[in-house]
Amino acid sequence: MGVLILTREQIKQVIDMRDVLEKVRDVYKLKSKGESVIWPLVNYEFEKENAAMDIRSGYVMGNEQLHGLKMLNNFPANTEKGLPPFNGLMMVYDSNTGMPIGIMDASYITCMRTGAAGAIGVDALARKDAKTLMILGAGKQAPFQIAATLILRPQINKVYIVDPVNYPQAIALANRIEQQLKEEFDVDASGVSFIAEEHAETAVREADAVITVTRATKPMIMNDWVKPGTHFSCLGSDMEGKEELDENIFIGARVYADDIAQCVRVGEMEIPIAKGTFRKEDIVGEIGDLLINDVKGRENDAQTTIFDATGLYILDLAAAKVAIANAKAANMGIEIDM
Amino acid sequence: MGVLILTREQIKQVIDMRDVLEKVRDVYKLKSKGESVIWPLVNYEFEKENAAMDIRSGYVMGNEQLHGLKMLNNFPANTEKGLPPFNGLMMVYDSNTGMPIGIMDASYITCMRTGAAGAIGVDALARKDAKTLMILGAGKQAPFQIAATLILRPQINKVYIVDPVNYPQAIALANRIEQQLKEEFDVDASGVSFIAEEHAETAVREADAVITVTRATKPMIMNDWVKPGTHFSCLGSDMEGKEELDENIFIGARVYADDIAQCVRVGEMEIPIAKGTFRKEDIVGEIGDLLINDVKGRENDAQTTIFDATGLYILDLAAAKVAIANAKAANMGIEIDM
Repeated sequence: MGVLILTREQIKQVIDMRDVLEKVRDVYKLKSKGESVIWPLVNYEFEKENAAMDIRSGYVMGNEQLHGLKMLNNFPANTEKGLPPFNGLMMVYDSNTGMPIGIMDASYITCMRTGAAGAIGVDALARKDAKTLMILGAGKQAPFQIAATLILRPQINKVYIVDPVNYPQAIALANRIEQQLKEEFDVDASGVSFIAEEHAETAVREADAVITVTRATKPMIMNDWVKPGTHFSCLGSDMEGKEELDENIFIGARVYADDIAQCVRVGEMEIPIAKGTFRKEDIVGEIGDLLINDVKGRENDAQTTIFDATGLYILDLAAAKVAIANAKAANMGIEIDM
Repeated sequence: MGVLILTREQIKQVIDMRDVLEKVRDVYKLKSKGESVIWPLVNYEFEKENAAMDIRSGYVMGNEQLHGLKMLNNFPANTEKGLPPFNGLMMVYDSNTGMPIGIMDASYITCMRTGAAGAIGVDALARKDAKTLMILGAGKQAPFQIAATLILRPQINKVYIVDPVNYPQAIALANRIEQQLKEEFDVDASGVSFIAEEHAETAVREADAVITVTRATKPMIMNDWVKPGTHFSCLGSDMEGKEELDENIFIGARVYADDIAQCVRVGEMEIPIAKGTFRKEDIVGEIGDLLINDVKGRENDAQTTIFDATGLYILDLAAAKVAIANAKAANMGIEIDM
């Protein structure tokens, strides 16, 4: 009955995106069946250090029966000190007994479940014939989004990687991604073209599905560029004031949330709602409602669809459970009787 | 730069009550200087499991520069399953960099810092000539309170151990405590008489200082029994509805809090304030204010003094730092690069 301690490297070795996709989908469904609780966010800004921390926690029932938390720290000045600017740990408890079952690095799991979330939005809402994906933001999240989306939608054969803030990063990613997908995610992307772009317009005009994963605080994708039938999975906006899409894209779009209350407060829809361009009442539902067929998805090939995902700690929990089970099976990690 | 993992047994081996007393006193002072933040409590009741969890977190500045959290789980049905009903883990981070420095069992540290808190109240407020201590509640907290108080007030030569709910437990503790103090806390109590009592009255009538550590929800100590000049450190009341003292004891007493807002909400003073027997405005100050001489302590030998302590996570943090430093010095625990 020990607690399994897993490092980032160990998690990376034992966790498979296919398992995470399945778990994230299950947790979205459990949430829509009322089988989960997101506990209140605790966050703080360290003024002198120009840093921030947040504590996310929650409880997922059903087959999972897990609760726990993660504390994430963002200390940008660490880069100068040769330390990682982001880091965090999570704790996972068995909700049948309250006993801790795992303590682990939170960063890789966060990336995995975020990749899964974006891809589940694409898979559930993009046109069935979607062939061109665009990723806005070539940072550390991009490979996870691409891997998960190619697993769910293997007919995608072109991926635009757009980074208006750091174009060299987009080029580097486009050059290495096929190999990284193979090595890190066991995804064969030999039939996919990866194209780096500095500006979003060309890619948006052609994309069937767009995933946004930047820290932008003003729109980087304009409504005029969007062709009919495009799907957007918006992952970047998870704090007040963040925004990646032109508000007008919301007009007439079918909009889904991972958690309605949280998306209204801090998601991509926050600013369109504040400006009156979009109304909360016009949200079709949560993604879990769609996955359990409580609400309808895309109605035709000309509609714009938007999945606003702000991140749910219960996704991390389910992904962590996979990591714990796989690590135990592989005899990996250190188990400690605390 | 690894994270040190410490089990309950390891913490027990490396941590000394004298160090914890010093740290807890420092943290109370830092709090009164505005050098700490208690972050919002997150708690939850698992209805079906008849269980509860809470997440306490905070940040202490000054020489400490630490932040972190602990999650405590209370699953009473575990006893039938042969599992501990209470358990919890804590995480400690360096607030200069946000890097985790320790992950450890939370239970022993909680006991240590709670013992230190009760004793610091006695030392700061009991009459200088106090010789008789009474502990109400012979459960797991009692030895920590006795150890810490005897360290700070070595002239105490009589300790009443009172447990109206479980008298055999009081007898057992009175029989073993001298040895436990020696072995576990390195405290020589060979000159102290330990007397078990089932009822509080005799002991209260004689006590110079009283520490309460029960889960009572109605008064167990009546005002009529209290002699002039008695000090009370009230540790048991840390949730709404808990109460150990007759409200009338508050009338005319000099009352101090560990955290005024928290004590008013859930401390020993909650009910006296709600009933109008005592007023928030009449709190003299926080214990830290007293320790930095911002407010006055006992004014004469006839006054009743009360220290209402509901528990502060920042105390755990400082105690955890001691445990980490001592464990490193003793080459104990496992250090993992997460």
